[in-house]
Amino acid sequence: MAAAGPGAAGTARVSSGRELGCVPEVAAALGAVARQGFDFLCAPLFHPRHRREFRLLPAKERPGPQTRSDLLLAGRDWNTLIVGKVSPWIRPDSPLEAVRRNSEAELDFAAYLGVPAVLLSLRGPHCPNLARGLCAHLQGAPHGAAVWVRVPLLAPEDGREDVIANEELVNEGDGRQEERTWHWWHNFRTLCDYNKRVGLALEVGPDLPSAEAIDRWLGEPLRAAILPTSIFLTNKKGFPVLSRPHQRLLGRLLKLEVQVVLWGAPHHEPKPLSAYLQYLEHVGQNRPPPSAYELFARGYEDYLQCPLQPLMDNLESQTYEVFEKDPIKYSQYQQAIYKCLLDRVPEEEKETNVQVVLVLGAGRGPLVNAALRAARMAQRRIRVYAVEKNPNAVVTLQSWQYEEWGSQVSVVPRDMREWRPPEAADLLVSELLGSFGDNELAPECLDGAQPCLKEGGVSIPCSYTSFLAPLSSSKLYNEVRGCRERDRHPEAQFETPYVVRLHNFHQLAAPQPCFTFRHPKPDPSEDNSRYRVLSFPVGVTTALHGFAGYFETTLYADVTLSIRPETHSPGMFSWFPIFFPLKQPMAVQAGQRVVLSFWRRAAPQKVWYEWAVTEPRCSALHNPAGRSYTIGL
Amino acid sequence: MAAAGPGAAGTARVSSGRELGCVPEVAAALGAVARQGFDFLCAPLFHPRHRREFRLLPAKERPGPQTRSDLLLAGRDWNTLIVGKVSPWIRPDSPLEAVRRNSEAELDFAAYLGVPAVLLSLRGPHCPNLARGLCAHLQGAPHGAAVWVRVPLLAPEDGREDVIANEELVNEGDGRQEERTWHWWHNFRTLCDYNKRVGLALEVGPDLPSAEAIDRWLGEPLRAAILPTSIFLTNKKGFPVLSRPHQRLLGRLLKLEVQVVLWGAPHHEPKPLSAYLQYLEHVGQNRPPPSAYELFARGYEDYLQCPLQPLMDNLESQTYEVFEKDPIKYSQYQQAIYKCLLDRVPEEEKETNVQVVLVLGAGRGPLVNAALRAARMAQRRIRVYAVEKNPNAVVTLQSWQYEEWGSQVSVVPRDMREWRPPEAADLLVSELLGSFGDNELAPECLDGAQPCLKEGGVSIPCSYTSFLAPLSSSKLYNEVRGCRERDRHPEAQFETPYVVRLHNFHQLAAPQPCFTFRHPKPDPSEDNSRYRVLSFPVGVTTALHGFAGYFETTLYADVTLSIRPETHSPGMFSWFPIFFPLKQPMAVQAGQRVVLSFWRRAAPQKVWYEWAVTEPRCSALHNPAGRSYTIGL
Repeated sequence: MAAAGPGAAGTARVSSGRELGCVPEVAAALGAVARQGFDFLCAPLFHPRHRREFRLLPAKERPGPQTRSDLLLAGRDWNTLIVGKVSPWIRPDSPLEAVRRNSEAELDFAAYLGVPAVLLSLRGPHCPNLARGLCAHLQGAPHGAAVWVRVPLLAPEDGREDVIANEELVNEGDGRQEERTWHWWHNFRTLCDYNKRVGLALEVGPDLPSAEAIDRWLGEPLRAAILPTSIFLTNKKGFPVLSRPHQRLLGRLLKLEVQVVLWGAPHHEPKPLSAYLQYLEHVGQNRPPPSAYELFARGYEDYLQCPLQPLMDNLESQTYEVFEKDPIKYSQYQQAIYKCLLDRVPEEEKETNVQVVLVLGAGRGPLVNAALRAARMAQRRIRVYAVEKNPNAVVTLQSWQYEEWGSQVSVVPRDMREWRPPEAADLLVSELLGSFGDNELAPECLDGAQPCLKEGGVSIPCSYTSFLAPLSSSKLYNEVRGCRERDRHPEAQFETPYVVRLHNFHQLAAPQPCFTFRHPKPDPSEDNSRYRVLSFPVGVTTALHGFAGYFETTLYADVTLSIRPETHSPGMFSWFPIFFPLKQPMAVQAGQRVVLSFWRRAAPQKVWYEWAVTEPRCSALHNPAGRSYTIGL
Repeated sequence: MAAAGPGAAGTARVSSGRELGCVPEVAAALGAVARQGFDFLCAPLFHPRHRREFRLLPAKERPGPQTRSDLLLAGRDWNTLIVGKVSPWIRPDSPLEAVRRNSEAELDFAAYLGVPAVLLSLRGPHCPNLARGLCAHLQGAPHGAAVWVRVPLLAPEDGREDVIANEELVNEGDGRQEERTWHWWHNFRTLCDYNKRVGLALEVGPDLPSAEAIDRWLGEPLRAAILPTSIFLTNKKGFPVLSRPHQRLLGRLLKLEVQVVLWGAPHHEPKPLSAYLQYLEHVGQNRPPPSAYELFARGYEDYLQCPLQPLMDNLESQTYEVFEKDPIKYSQYQQAIYKCLLDRVPEEEKETNVQVVLVLGAGRGPLVNAALRAARMAQRRIRVYAVEKNPNAVVTLQSWQYEEWGSQVSVVPRDMREWRPPEAADLLVSELLGSFGDNELAPECLDGAQPCLKEGGVSIPCSYTSFLAPLSSSKLYNEVRGCRERDRHPEAQFETPYVVRLHNFHQLAAPQPCFTFRHPKPDPSEDNSRYRVLSFPVGVTTALHGFAGYFETTLYADVTLSIRPETHSPGMFSWFPIFFPLKQPMAVQAGQRVVLSFWRRAAPQKVWYEWAVTEPRCSALHNPAGRSYTIGL
């Protein structure tokens, strides 16, 4: 079904619906709309004449049906092709009790029909009784039914039509005007306790707010974009088109797989209504094609994964296989080793000086191959020890050694923290980094291997830094909330980081560096626990749901890898970001700072993170003493 | 043990400790302090010389012990008589790492000693690393150990000593100055996630803040009051005494069973140190004696009870017995019936006019007896039908009838909503009210019995109104949180009201009326669902934790019962207040309004409440569709 079913990410086709203000004959209207090329119909649940009865006592006391019969369509059509519009005149938060009760009756009827989505409008900041009616409705309908909450991108009174021509759109100091309708939505979904089935139908008007104000909506559960025909311009040939800013907005919304609803009478006669639809289709298809990274990540958008624990658990063959396919990572390693060999071995020693390379955590051998290629390219000689603790991967290494590498490589089936090589190493080469840099315990592993390194020897990577950025994403908040497990503390899922391809989110400030580790460690007595306070300026009023984590690493000299968005290694897909959630969404005002305390704690058997927000308000400390999540050594 | 054990509520004796700044010989100091009459000793954990080492690298690298040995006292003495003071110079939130680490070492040592409480000072608004250390400490010590967080009632810089004489203590517009230290505390305990073992040691200085600022502390988990000797005045005979405002404050704190800690050198030589203690004992003993209500409620302070469901469950004999002992309630009923009989039956008809009285829910008969006494007093004739659905209580009624009442009373073992009497009634008399008025479903029961009533007949009670008031109480928040049950939704405990003797709480605004019901119902078609929006002005910056509920009822004419504090029927103990919690504490600024939406929902088989806060921010809707709590019909 088009109206409510999820599509595969990145699907080019635009799913579209037609909204009508009055539908005397539902079967006929549905047929006409389908012929125009639309996937579904947004039709009023109740006849407009119902409005007249609105100020009287409960309308149900009037004889005769209140609206059309449900027999006019087959159940399957109601269930798949109709989005039911709640009448625009209902006032569930009216101070008049009869008006309130009549309003509640419409919601009940929608539940009875079983339409896949109900479309209703927010018209102000406080709608507790509408929220209550809706929650009851969703509570009673355990499967399928969704609610699309229609919110204008700008409140009607903030549109430019009311403003004298050429006058600047004046914000009330802090942009509060642009935020007005976001607050309507935020209040409402908070009352609904972030119910997953309450989605957003954003109504786009002729005027658009600032880019920052638009960004804020991208962390919300967008389901539909409602486009009035009146926002379309006319091109030279008389066809409807959108302005560039509107095109850009639509492109961003389509990336989040919204469905598009066209509303209003055609304004481009004699062009048929389908001209609008063809234009939307055109915009959908002319979006930039997905990058290699986006293609790789397809289907993983906002999907939470527990971070790997390669120290405690042995990886599976397929996990190695996926990561070995990264087109960038190993060529960067090769480049780093190449530069390092050239720096360490002068041309005149190239035949006599054999560099000892320890590959720590060799897996199925990609770094060994990178080292061998680098040595060939640099015309330098190396001797490689491939250290790997996973006995299953060792089988692969040994067959490589037997079939390809020969005596130049020794396979060592040991834990790098215990094994001591027969000769001191010139290079330690490892790929122990997680999405947050140190979160797979590279510091502890490389400290353990440091005694193997010659004085003046080099570690590749030689340093890495984690980064954090505050973000808003009701999608991720809800995904984390859904990870509750019966046998754990009921908030344990909020005290765990997740590896996730961030998609439906809004980053509130640029990432800032958190922890840096260098190898070989300058002061071996220094331990690997860390504490850092980060302060992020936030420019919009929003709800904070957690922090995105990234890392950058310097492999050698100027050879780096990064998953920080600003410096992301192009095309590299080995790491998705990490996400540290907050138990409670925190309201943040434009101009306030988000201050985060972040700890890396280390005990003999385990390492863990703790985090807490201290401004604009204090949160609880997350994961105290590692109670919900630790990384085993 | 004096320092950490709970006492029975209302105990007159003051538990007291002596705080010393330097204790060279712990056994000797303990002996001396005990001889002076103190129950426990607050002694520094570390020697002051330790301070010199503070800016160096981790002090543990210095040879020799860092503080006295734990062998100086028996384990039992450490465990019961010593509150360990963390050194005032520790700075766990220092930007200098060595200072942070030395600070953390002290907390670890306190855990090792096993003292019943650790006393540490808050000196500013942001102490996330202190909170982290403390949470780790409490996580590792599963039993017993508590933390007393020392917070000054006024920040040192806000005391009057720094102010030019005769100048008014200027508040920063909104009283922010007086709130400063409360914010320190609120931030800190929020980071500690309201940990039950983190209590408050309030340090009282010579200057006191406004009454409102003091009130705010009364919702906090107060464990100790620290009184410096310098705040004592000198009476004519040279003895130490407290000013009247200080006495009042101490009285309020003692009511919450704080322990008192005396700090500082004696200032009233030659009077011995014990003179202070004797004075405190005197203040403790001269508090007003507990009222009958307080005596009845002793031991029930802040103890959460699920509201009775007398419609669904049959009450036990002892429950009837407790409520029958109320000295006020039945005499008010008797008075109401008396006045009603006089109004309905003129003197000249007193022999001929027999009023038919239906006692609905007669229980073990107290209302029947009240009616019979009222009739005798009024010299009017009545015929009573005692309707009771609980077959166990009917046994008691039948034996009363057989032994005492005779044919004047008919016992009817039926449900009042179904039974129809052989003659129409003049009076319906019932006691179906709960702490929130209608919450034991009096409206539904009395609607069901209304057909039994004559035209112009009277219901006693004839009306009742519920009231709500916002409150702050970390004690109640924590008690509710502790009611989590494995098989329920993890937040179900926050979607249930509790009957509770409110004790350690701060009411933020006067109660406002919520729902009113009248009997007989003026319009029988009106249903019993209700919706009400209440708006409370709040004068202090605080944390909102929920709403206290009360009721008032008019039995007849001017005869009333009330548990609303402003109008509470003196000496009546049948009802404790009700408490509607919030899932999340909500920060409220002085001058903001708390706006509450409150619903009574009625379905054929059950009734329930829903509630949500919409200002200053939206909460989630609580108990949507009655998912966590309903009252069965």
